[in-house]
Amino acid sequence: MIELVGFDGDDTLWHSEGYYQHAGAEFERILGAWIDVADADARTRLHAVERRNLSLFGYGAKGMTLSMIEAAIELTDGAITAGDIHRIVELGRTILEHPVELLPGIRAAVEEVAALHRVVLITKGDLFHQEHKVAQSGLADLFQRIEIVSEKNVRSYARVLAECAVEAPRFAMVGNSLRSDIEPVIALGGWGVHMPYHVTWEHELQHGVESGHPRVLAVASPDAIAAAVARCG
Amino acid sequence: MIELVGFDGDDTLWHSEGYYQHAGAEFERILGAWIDVADADARTRLHAVERRNLSLFGYGAKGMTLSMIEAAIELTDGAITAGDIHRIVELGRTILEHPVELLPGIRAAVEEVAALHRVVLITKGDLFHQEHKVAQSGLADLFQRIEIVSEKNVRSYARVLAECAVEAPRFAMVGNSLRSDIEPVIALGGWGVHMPYHVTWEHELQHGVESGHPRVLAVASPDAIAAAVARCG
Repeated sequence: MIELVGFDGDDTLWHSEGYYQHAGAEFERILGAWIDVADADARTRLHAVERRNLSLFGYGAKGMTLSMIEAAIELTDGAITAGDIHRIVELGRTILEHPVELLPGIRAAVEEVAALHRVVLITKGDLFHQEHKVAQSGLADLFQRIEIVSEKNVRSYARVLAECAVEAPRFAMVGNSLRSDIEPVIALGGWGVHMPYHVTWEHELQHGVESGHPRVLAVASPDAIAAAVARCG
Repeated sequence: MIELVGFDGDDTLWHSEGYYQHAGAEFERILGAWIDVADADARTRLHAVERRNLSLFGYGAKGMTLSMIEAAIELTDGAITAGDIHRIVELGRTILEHPVELLPGIRAAVEEVAALHRVVLITKGDLFHQEHKVAQSGLADLFQRIEIVSEKNVRSYARVLAECAVEAPRFAMVGNSLRSDIEPVIALGGWGVHMPYHVTWEHELQHGVESGHPRVLAVASPDAIAAAVARCG
């Protein structure tokens, strides 16, 4: 029997990735006035800057914005204007300020699960931005605990379970990312309820969850979450 | 009798503010090639950008860097070059990558306190950067719990105390900032051990702690912390 259910935030409770993808596309449009962004060499260099900076800046809009600024300067050999760099800063601001829109039916789904289990929110990224989104979502009161972590890996889930005094086989995690929400929980011996989102960040596509794993249940929409949790454990 | 002792991180366990102040000075040197940074109007505009962005970006090196970039573009009316903006990005990188140097005697001080009390680390700022510093410090194992919060206010301390199941009068907080480490703890009814650092961020100078408050003890260096904690409660 499941005791504790974790919910992911971005793209599980509220829309997020679309704002990042929109900013990424606008960034390429700005950069496109200076270089051929479709060029294979340019793409390689763009990804190299992104990867290098991810390990220094971590996830989130501020790190992404700094990385875009650096990439723009490097790829244009310093030719890009301050005006265009300011437009890149503005792209970061639009992500940080985007309205928090809940996925249809998610409040009812969390309430349904919370009626039978303890529920926690486990989200990753920038502390300040995530706290802002949690507050804006209006869902904070439904969760017994809110955990914002810098990386969703075996270690961070193990810490949350220890603090909640729950064994992994009594824990189910609901989220859109196989890499961040499902794989580490399965590795610990817990359960995963996977609810894919219509867009996925490339970084999150890399995972080692085998198709048809017996402790991973897939749902298509929030109204199916509670029934899936009932089948865990 | 004190049950739980909290330690601040930046400028209490390890040096930090000096790196921010150095970056700030370098930023003004870069900007000084374009405008008169000593000019009163320029200073007003600089502070306005900083304040406006603090509420959007939060604390930390990434937000500071984005804010410096935006201020540089605005104050030079877009005349600053991409090369100089890249130097500002590099300033942010130096903060994020600075070596974590412990204050002399702090390890022994934490060990001395930990021999008699539960100890927790309560630090604010960027989650990714703070976790990195905690790991680099080699002190993580001394603490029962590590709390990284976006703002050190009454609410965040109340949450930590609730999670640790400790009443405020049984809690003492050790830190360099009257605003962040002492004032909110005193407001809750707890104790403060104030260890000033030789430089203080202007933002942290604003506080409402009365001089000579009976639950605030001042120490000059880490070797006096344990004795001060013993006088609390």
